[in-house]
Amino acid sequence: MKINSERLLKNLEELSYIGRNEGGGIDRAFGSKSDLEAREWLIRYWKEHLGIETRIDAAANLWVDYQKKEGCLPLVIGSHHDAVPDGGRYDGALGVLLATEILETLMEAKLKLNHPLSVVSFTGEEPNPFNLSTIGSKVLCGRLTRESLENCISRDNGERIADALARAGGNLERLPSARLTKEDLFAFLECHIEQGSRLEKKNLPTAAVTCITGIYREQYTVQGEANHAGTTVMTDRKDAYLAAAELSLMLERIALEFQDDDVVATVGYVEVQPNEANIIPGVTQCIVDIRTYDTAVKALFVARITDAVSRIEEKRGVKIKREVLLDQLHMPMHPDVIQAVCQGVQSVQEKVPELVSMAGHDAANLARVTKSGMIFVRSVDGKSHCKEEYSTPEDIEKVGNAMLQAVLALDRSDKSETI
Amino acid sequence: MKINSERLLKNLEELSYIGRNEGGGIDRAFGSKSDLEAREWLIRYWKEHLGIETRIDAAANLWVDYQKKEGCLPLVIGSHHDAVPDGGRYDGALGVLLATEILETLMEAKLKLNHPLSVVSFTGEEPNPFNLSTIGSKVLCGRLTRESLENCISRDNGERIADALARAGGNLERLPSARLTKEDLFAFLECHIEQGSRLEKKNLPTAAVTCITGIYREQYTVQGEANHAGTTVMTDRKDAYLAAAELSLMLERIALEFQDDDVVATVGYVEVQPNEANIIPGVTQCIVDIRTYDTAVKALFVARITDAVSRIEEKRGVKIKREVLLDQLHMPMHPDVIQAVCQGVQSVQEKVPELVSMAGHDAANLARVTKSGMIFVRSVDGKSHCKEEYSTPEDIEKVGNAMLQAVLALDRSDKSETI
Repeated sequence: MKINSERLLKNLEELSYIGRNEGGGIDRAFGSKSDLEAREWLIRYWKEHLGIETRIDAAANLWVDYQKKEGCLPLVIGSHHDAVPDGGRYDGALGVLLATEILETLMEAKLKLNHPLSVVSFTGEEPNPFNLSTIGSKVLCGRLTRESLENCISRDNGERIADALARAGGNLERLPSARLTKEDLFAFLECHIEQGSRLEKKNLPTAAVTCITGIYREQYTVQGEANHAGTTVMTDRKDAYLAAAELSLMLERIALEFQDDDVVATVGYVEVQPNEANIIPGVTQCIVDIRTYDTAVKALFVARITDAVSRIEEKRGVKIKREVLLDQLHMPMHPDVIQAVCQGVQSVQEKVPELVSMAGHDAANLARVTKSGMIFVRSVDGKSHCKEEYSTPEDIEKVGNAMLQAVLALDRSDKSETI
Repeated sequence: MKINSERLLKNLEELSYIGRNEGGGIDRAFGSKSDLEAREWLIRYWKEHLGIETRIDAAANLWVDYQKKEGCLPLVIGSHHDAVPDGGRYDGALGVLLATEILETLMEAKLKLNHPLSVVSFTGEEPNPFNLSTIGSKVLCGRLTRESLENCISRDNGERIADALARAGGNLERLPSARLTKEDLFAFLECHIEQGSRLEKKNLPTAAVTCITGIYREQYTVQGEANHAGTTVMTDRKDAYLAAAELSLMLERIALEFQDDDVVATVGYVEVQPNEANIIPGVTQCIVDIRTYDTAVKALFVARITDAVSRIEEKRGVKIKREVLLDQLHMPMHPDVIQAVCQGVQSVQEKVPELVSMAGHDAANLARVTKSGMIFVRSVDGKSHCKEEYSTPEDIEKVGNAMLQAVLALDRSDKSETI
């Protein structure tokens, strides 16, 4: 049994017109007009091609339930249809459309699985004007509640998230009804583009994901002394920006020393005050984002930062205040799902690479309530979150067939859970 | 003959209430309500205590002319009464009030100079909402013309500079009438706080200024590649911010290697794009401000930057675009004025230090049209452009008497110029 890759590619192409901007990127943030259009497109497709009416839960997640049976836990496959601003065609959309393709293939083959199969497209996985990501899967696993969303408004136009959810078919009042537990699901599997270049370097099309990275974010506020850029001699300066620059380069050096592709550190946010050409910076804020699957590595990294901070404070006469903004643990994928994915990958290529996902995904939230796993497909040049995001038709066909086999293997992996 | 330092300190105190904010700093930018109040205070003081009506030129510079004589060039002393936002009490104000005190002392002593003496307070020396500094002295020496100011508006409220000048008693239409040449002036002498800590380190109250520093400003635009902070492995990154950080630290190192207090480099302005914690910076702009009195040092500095830029471009796979924003030559003070100032300084202290001014001043513009010079007084802790700006009463008395002697020496220095 094989997927129909031509149909899958045609669907990817069609969905990519929704929200496409003049530059060729895709604008399809949660709550936008194009988010709603993409939802309509999916609902119509599922109705016309699978003959199934979409079920929309209170978090506005879209569900297609196939062979639903009382007392029998469903195997869920899918991803999200929204996009980052000026994003690409594959991030999220590929996962939803491949899940759809797999269901369509199984229906055409009239194959009966042990478990009911559901396809899902989650609400608001990407950053959006409500400053929340993975909204749908966070509600599903209990990380976002009705209370926590009640005062949430769009930074763009002040719309309440309750109204944005309602426009998409959700219902903030009934949000608890979208909460699921391990009593509701058999397993979850998501296909996603890698968004990095590790598969390209290995010259392989697909990989099993073993773990979703932990993310640790600290904000540094360097307090130096603003002063005249001319009259303050070099040796008297307490330049907050140069202290931050030194710290940033130190963070890069520490990350490089681990010599592990799954350990990265980034200073993406920097703000200098007063930010005038003729004034020595008095204050500089920056945020470092450190990612690793290993809490020991994180602890070692943080200890080395502490050393570096003391050294820079002493050398430059500045004070560096630290604040932890985020400390999200890594999330291992479930061994049963990893095993099924490995079987799937093996059906399309000889080597079976196992990768850590260095980005967050809905699958990490699903891992809190069910056996969860992911399969990656190679990203050309590692590009993502941009219009150049691309995976080749050949690779998409391969990951499609690998995922189909993984679904079959996963379905057979544990009959005891079907009551 | 001595100045009346008690009177001078009292006047400094009084003027410092004009524009003083709740935090104790002074807001007295050109065109503001407090700028106008300070002008009124000076005009009233000069009228009441010197019996002289203020002459306001088309650039709204305030002049007090003593013993004006047809065909006899005046010796001009003064500074400016405006202040940087949240500035201190001494920058500018001391120069105007000390010039006033010297004239008052000479009048009380009924001393007749060879030259007429004028006191001046210049318009808008400091940064202001019109994005221009040393406005009054730039008009005087021809660096700012009526045409160049016609479309100049306030970034705060859109007011035309013509209207701000008119409120202060100036007249944009008649601006050319404020232009002076060497046929109009005998010499100019300005007292100013040092704004640095070189005098403090030498443990001396006053110094002669030999030169006003050159200022060279370059903007760097580092073009890297914005990418996902998680999925992009460290060795694949083209991080524009880290390249800028490395360049900035390199600039500091080069400046330090000159081991000369009169060579400084500052990166005061930094802008990172897109400036999000989870995105590797794709573009970073920064501005370096390099100051030296020596064109050879500047050339060497720029050559070393060129080396550093190439090395960083190659190492980090980024492109660095350079743009010269300002290339203002250093301006030597006139030997006759330096000599007179040295005589004055010698009358109050044994050693006569000669300093380069590392900040720009009205005296640099005056040097284009007359013999120009400056005398510095020690700044406590080198602080300036802040409410902590301070010079002790003892030092102010000393610089006052030194400047009085310098004026007398300068007046006698070249009788040939009095026609």
